[in-house]
This record gives sequence, C-alpha cells and structure tokens, in this order.
Amino acid sequence: MKNKNTSLFLIFKRTIRFGDSDAAGVIHFHNLFRWAHESWEQSLEEYGIDPLEIFPVGKENNDKLTTALPIVHCEADFLKRVRTGDRLTIEIQPKKIDKSSFQVKTSFLSQEDYVAISLIRHIAINVGSRERCPLPEGIERWLESASINIGPSPI
Amino acid sequence: MKNKNTSLFLIFKRTIRFGDSDAAGVIHFHNLFRWAHESWEQSLEEYGIDPLEIFPVGKENNDKLTTALPIVHCEADFLKRVRTGDRLTIEIQPKKIDKSSFQVKTSFLSQEDYVAISLIRHIAINVGSRERCPLPEGIERWLESASINIGPSPI
Amino acid sequence: MKNKNTSLFLIFKRTIRFGDSDAAGVIHFHNLFRWAHESWEQSLEEYGIDPLEIFPVGKENNDKLTTALPIVHCEADFLKRVRTGDRLTIEIQPKKIDKSSFQVKTSFLSQEDYVAISLIRHIAINVGSRERCPLPEGIERWLESASINIGPSPI
Amino acid sequence: MKNKNTSLFLIFKRTIRFGDSDAAGVIHFHNLFRWAHESWEQSLEEYGIDPLEIFPVGKENNDKLTTALPIVHCEADFLKRVRTGDRLTIEIQPKKIDKSSFQVKTSFLSQEDYVAISLIRHIAINVGSRERCPLPEGIERWLESASINIGPSPI
Repeated sequence: MKNKNTSLFLIFKRTIRFGDSDAAGVIHFHNLFRWAHESWEQSLEEYGIDPLEIFPVGKENNDKLTTALPIVHCEADFLKRVRTGDRLTIEIQPKKIDKSSFQVKTSFLSQEDYVAISLIRHIAINVGSRERCPLPEGIERWLESASINIGPSPI
Repeated sequence: MKNKNTSLFLIFKRTIRFGDSDAAGVIHFHNLFRWAHESWEQSLEEYGIDPLEIFPVGKENNDKLTTALPIVHCEADFLKRVRTGDRLTIEIQPKKIDKSSFQVKTSFLSQEDYVAISLIRHIAINVGSRERCPLPEGIERWLESASINIGPSPI
Repeated sequence: MKNKNTSLFLIFKRTIRFGDSDAAGVIHFHNLFRWAHESWEQSLEEYGIDPLEIFPVGKENNDKLTTALPIVHCEADFLKRVRTGDRLTIEIQPKKIDKSSFQVKTSFLSQEDYVAISLIRHIAINVGSRERCPLPEGIERWLESASINIGPSPI
Repeated sequence: MKNKNTSLFLIFKRTIRFGDSDAAGVIHFHNLFRWAHESWEQSLEEYGIDPLEIFPVGKENNDKLTTALPIVHCEADFLKRVRTGDRLTIEIQPKKIDKSSFQVKTSFLSQEDYVAISLIRHIAINVGSRERCPLPEGIERWLESASINIGPSPI
C-alpha cells in the first residue's frame, strides 16, 4: 500500500492553467507527459539528486555525463476530463525494470478520482557508444527508496 | 500492403526543428504526439473534411458541434534518436475500433528506418450528455477510405 | 517600492525542468511566456478570482462569459542564460492601461539577478460583438490591489 | 518593395492545428514564436545552410560549434484572431543589426490580412567565453541575400 506520507512520491498539487487547455476546453492531451516528467524531476530533486548529475545542460556537464536516459516508451490513459482551474494531485510510482532500465507510472487525481495515468520508460545508455549500460548510481538509490516506501508496483 | 501512392495516409515530410529538441540534443519525447495529431488533421483536410465539422473553435461552431472526440489513450515507442535537421517521413494508419471509437497509428521514418511509432485512440461522445455516441459521418467515411487504401492494420 | 510581503505579486519559485530546455542547454525562449501567463493566473487565483469567471472552459461557462481578454502584444528580454535545475523567483507587476486594457510585467530572478523580463498586454472585448468593452470587475479589483500593494509601475 | 518571388523569405503556408489553440478557440499566443523560429530555420535550410553548422545537437557537433546565437529579445503583436483550420502565409524579413547581432521580423497573413507580426533578435556569442563575437559566416551570407532580395526593412 502506498504510504501517503512519502512526500517524494506523492509529489505535488498542480492547478491546470489556461495554456494547458485546447479549444475543446480540456487539457491538451500530451501536456500530461510534460507534467509526468516534471514530477519525476521534482522527486529526484527532493531526494537530493543534483539535476546536473542526470540531465545535460550544455558544455558545462557534457564531459562529465557519461550516461543518458532516453525515453523508449510512454503511454497514457485519460479517464475523466480535466479543465482550466482544476487542481490535481500527482503521485509517482517508480520501478526498476532491469539493471539498465526503469519506468515511472504517474497518477493524476482530482478530488478522490483518478483522471489520468501515464507511464514513461527510460533506458540507460553510454553517451559515447550508445550501448545500454547500468543505471546511474543516484537513480539506483532513488528507485530503491521508492520500492521501500511505496511497495511493489502492480504494473 | 501499404499503397505508397495513398497520399492521404502517407502524410508528409517534416524537418525536425531546434525548438523540438531538448538539452540531450534529441527531440523532446512528447512532441511526437503533437506531430501525430497534426498529421491526422492534415489527412482529414486532404480528404476534404472541414475542420469546423470536427474541432471546436469557440462560439462560432459550438452550437453545431454535437460530437466531441476526446483522446482516451495514447502511446509511443522511440526506436532511434531524432535530432534537429533530421527529415522524417510520417505515415498514418487509421482504424475503426467500434461504432464509437477509432485509433490512428503513426509511423515516423528517417531514410528507410522507423525512428518512432505512436498510437492515439479517440472515442466519440455527445457534447451535452458526455455519453458515447456514433462517430461523426465524415470520420466514418475517412476511416472507410483508409481501410480500403491501406488495408487491414496489424494492430 | 515593491512590498516583498505582497505574496499575490511575488508569485512563486519555479525550478527549470529538462523539458523547458533546448539543445543549447538553456530554456527555450518562448517558454518564458508560458510561465508569465501561469504566474498571472496563479495571482488571480490567490486573490480569490474563480478561473471560470475569466477563462473559457467549454460549454459550461461559455454562455456566462461575455468578456474575453485576448493578448494583443507581448515581449521579452533575455538577460542571462537559464538552465535545467535553476531555481527562479517570479514577480509580477500588473498595471491598468485604460478602461479596457491592462498589462502584466513579469520579472524572473535567479539568486538576486534578473535573468529575464516579459510583458503581456490584454484587451477586454465583448465575446459576441468582438468590440472593446470594460474590464471584468474581478480584474479591475485585482489591478487596483496591485497598484496599492506594488505602487506605480515604471513602464 | 518585397519581391514576392523570393521564396527563401516568403516561407510557407501553415494551417493552424487544433493543438495550437486554447480554450478561447484561438491560437495560444506564444505558439507564434515557435512558428517564427521554425520559419527562420526553414529559410536557412532552403538557402543551403546545414543546421549542424548553426544549431547544437549534442556531442556530435558540440566541439565544432564555437558560436551560439541566443535570443536576447522577442516581441509580437496580435492583430486578428487566428483559429483552428485557418491557413496562414508566413513571410520573414531578416536584418543585420551590427556585426554580432541580427533580427528576424515575421509576418503572418490570413487571406490578404496581417493577423500577427513577431520580431526575434539574436546575438552571436563565443560558446566558451560567452562574449559577443562576429556572426557565423553562413548567417552573414544569408542576411546579405535577404537585404538584396527584400530590400531595406523599415523596422
């Protein structure tokens, strides 16, 4: 069972803004992935991982970053409509898949109802060879922390 | 077999632009869904469907549009990296699922290689009741045209 | 002088996320306008204005919303580069221009330094006639509150 | 006078897509800058400049790219509303400002009417020192070509 006190993984409240909507008056669908990715980043930050250890920012850290984490798959289910002004709760469930890949499932709730769920899968590759490689140590520790705090994820 | 002459469904060439990339130097993943949706819209347009019959644009057509086509599911696989300046070929494979839903599979190719594939599923709902309803007639005809021109889709 | 306690207008801290960047390793420029607009919306919300009074969300409030607030001008100056992981402070300075228009200047600071400044101008129009009309009452009150709490804006 | 045959600078037709709109049924304002930037890139490409000479794409060209072209200012005026399905003509007017900076004015027309105008200013900086430096040679030649084909720009 999810421990609701685990703030690293019960990430944040997000109010849907006008620019997130389309002319149907609901969120434009692929914004969901933006929020999911930002929630993952926020969780890493709260866990104490420096973004410069994980994300490229140009020449400054390009020489040090030997591992990249490209997304190989993503999916989302939209269960209820979400509109400007709605206040969502966003929860993430990270899970290690194997030694060079992991996924983050993200649930979006309005009041008590699930309105959308997304899943993003990353693999670790060596920046030079483009071959699969072990996950960065920080990501490993963060995934372990998730497995302890959240428990096994059903997906 | 796909008929390569079927221009409605072999949509267009798209050059990846700088603003599509992120600091890893590749396309930022969820842009793929934007391109897939735009390709679908372009196919409808080339088939002769007026966007105002399908997409809300505010007060002008809100009273006439009785059916909305919300997205209920989307997914994407990223097979090879795509970078600024890459020129992609985009093909769409629409498929009717049942009387009130359909999907559009979109393939992205660079040279001869598949670099990404996306899938977007829509349902038709009555704008007033929010209940499922039959697909709009224009979408029905366009789906039928796709099934004839492209042949059965394997997914 | 700006009253730093005026939380309505010293909006929030925002961490730059990976998806905000482009392949140059800095924020992709037009995201600044997204953040400026979201900050304005957040300020309205904190002031107690219901988004449904201001922003269209489809059929639900289309009949009640008689005034629209289209943007007629926007501009931005980029002073220092902003990268993934940077934590910005965002301040807004709203100002009434005349009875049917207003602007919101938004300053972005990293540490103590200004990194970017944007300006967005809105006019009020009647949704039916598309003619200029007085600002909505909520916006009027919010602008008045800004003029008292922030003092006259130099622009 | 603008030479309408100058295809490098009379860039392209662009149909506004559903995802470009917001819940007011018009284009969401900052998309205009995306289109302006993409039009600039397309013009460079048609002129024969390899994107890899201008835009970073990661490790592959990071060592070769010594000059970056950050945006220091942008602005836009929105003259008429633009909606899903509208077909716009986009024209660009590049202009050298001084030896290390240039701007691109972009006009958006629907039928014969101007619907929006944007302006984006870039400076050239040395990637290592972050100091101003001369414009890349390709950009210099492209700007010269623009000044001959379009004539002096009024702004």
